[in-house]
Amino acid sequence: MSALRDRGKFVSQYQNISPQDDSRAFRGALGKYGTGVAVITTVLSGKPVGMTVNSFAAVSLDPALILWSVQNSSSRVEVFAQATHFAVNVLSVDQLDISRAVASPDAATSAFETFEWSEGARGVPLIEGAIARFECSTDQVLPGGDHQIILGRVDKVSEREGESLLFVQGSYARTEAFPVPAADDLTPDGEPATDSLMQLLNTANHRLSRAFDEHRNMFGLNAANSRVLKRLSAGPMSIEALGESSFLTPQSALDAIAELSESGLVTWRDGLFEQSDKGREVRAQIAQNARQFNESVLSRFAPQDVSAIQRVLSEIVNF
Amino acid sequence: MSALRDRGKFVSQYQNISPQDDSRAFRGALGKYGTGVAVITTVLSGKPVGMTVNSFAAVSLDPALILWSVQNSSSRVEVFAQATHFAVNVLSVDQLDISRAVASPDAATSAFETFEWSEGARGVPLIEGAIARFECSTDQVLPGGDHQIILGRVDKVSEREGESLLFVQGSYARTEAFPVPAADDLTPDGEPATDSLMQLLNTANHRLSRAFDEHRNMFGLNAANSRVLKRLSAGPMSIEALGESSFLTPQSALDAIAELSESGLVTWRDGLFEQSDKGREVRAQIAQNARQFNESVLSRFAPQDVSAIQRVLSEIVNF
Repeated sequence: MSALRDRGKFVSQYQNISPQDDSRAFRGALGKYGTGVAVITTVLSGKPVGMTVNSFAAVSLDPALILWSVQNSSSRVEVFAQATHFAVNVLSVDQLDISRAVASPDAATSAFETFEWSEGARGVPLIEGAIARFECSTDQVLPGGDHQIILGRVDKVSEREGESLLFVQGSYARTEAFPVPAADDLTPDGEPATDSLMQLLNTANHRLSRAFDEHRNMFGLNAANSRVLKRLSAGPMSIEALGESSFLTPQSALDAIAELSESGLVTWRDGLFEQSDKGREVRAQIAQNARQFNESVLSRFAPQDVSAIQRVLSEIVNF
Repeated sequence: MSALRDRGKFVSQYQNISPQDDSRAFRGALGKYGTGVAVITTVLSGKPVGMTVNSFAAVSLDPALILWSVQNSSSRVEVFAQATHFAVNVLSVDQLDISRAVASPDAATSAFETFEWSEGARGVPLIEGAIARFECSTDQVLPGGDHQIILGRVDKVSEREGESLLFVQGSYARTEAFPVPAADDLTPDGEPATDSLMQLLNTANHRLSRAFDEHRNMFGLNAANSRVLKRLSAGPMSIEALGESSFLTPQSALDAIAELSESGLVTWRDGLFEQSDKGREVRAQIAQNARQFNESVLSRFAPQDVSAIQRVLSEIVNF
């Protein structure tokens, strides 16, 4: 097969993982496939129960089937495996707090006091503001290793406009659309307009952030680890505070901390995590590179242009 | 349940869908849950076969299991249902062309001539540049309505740094991270730095695009439909050309066209789609609103500031 001759080009950049021997690395590799964020809800003895998942997947259109999976070790596995009905609530980018509240270990029911919801036809909680809600009857519960795979038949769907909340490479994230060229973006005189401010901002933003990604790559840090190390510059922090302020889930924050500890960049004291001396050095180096990068971009322009762009962007940010 | 009293707040914005009666709307609702993009690969009689999917999901860590599903009506269902081994290749944002090439109906094998790949341990094709590659043994093939659910045991994993390609609300997309505040973003003199250009750009970009989303919402268009109507301003277009230039999949382009046709905004002639008179009017109105929005933002600033920001951003875009 002729592609073999080109094999050397990328192979050296790949890291090989044995999923049996390194669950954390396996979880990291699985996270390369971005997902939405869904809260699965049901009722138990008249009380709402919820679970934040990113294992939701569409299965079949006719019949309408979806699936998701729940860990056997979860305190909620019995509730959901035995529930005859449940709802899948797909969260919007404005509902990060709901994702966190429901994901919190002790909050299966109490989280429901922190957001608005209503009851679906079969009493399952429907989260207000969720951008899609699938009311399901449990169709099958299948063993899937250390999880149960729950197949649901979709009885009813409600949806609304809104931006999807995402979970990508260990971090919560939002979408950036690829800009679509328009042939009709003309001035009132019928002349083609120059790029709109929005298109310019969009492209410039992406160009800069990709150039910047190369800085952290130089230090062997992936995106989530880099976020955690950066955030710890504020001082010692609990895992919960760290996850929240870095836009990581509790699990991905733990994974990042474990990797950073193994690299000697983070230490642990009195239940709080902090940068080690080496971590401080690495972070200082990355921050300095970032500043130099920022300055090298700005140095291409006249000082009055730099002031102008900072003034304009700051004002837009504060609209 | 007390949440009921707040029910009126959002409910009016929801659109109810019967998944049995309206597959297209159901597909649209499913698309609210963002996904990555994966190419499943195997070998048949020594030849590589591929399939682009967004039904991939992690199942179990120990044992390592994943799943994905394939439509019964697909020409490739037999190949994959009978394959003893396959690989899941998670695509990076730079591999949109590979996603399209493999998704093309006749390209199950010929697509492999258009990109680089190598053979995994069991001969399954591994796509070079994919950010994660899971080499699997087929564990179970389960019926799932009009699809087969394929469970794979993960034998080997390779991963590399890179940005995830996403598929959200009918369109290919990329990730925009939530900015993490840094306490150590200081100037060389130890003073807190003003926001870096990158952070400013990131926030300003998002602020503007959300404000702009409201314009298309006013016309009852979702994101994918709005992209298609915009793109058709370039003139009549085939469904393939339209999908490609709007960053939609063939299926989501077809769905958008169907909805726009039903609303009388798009017509069909000689195998090409084009804006109807009404479609031209609506699009002209949206484009005018966009221009006015752009101008109203820029009018807040002195003309020399506007020139400066356009000059600086244009130069960054062309770095």
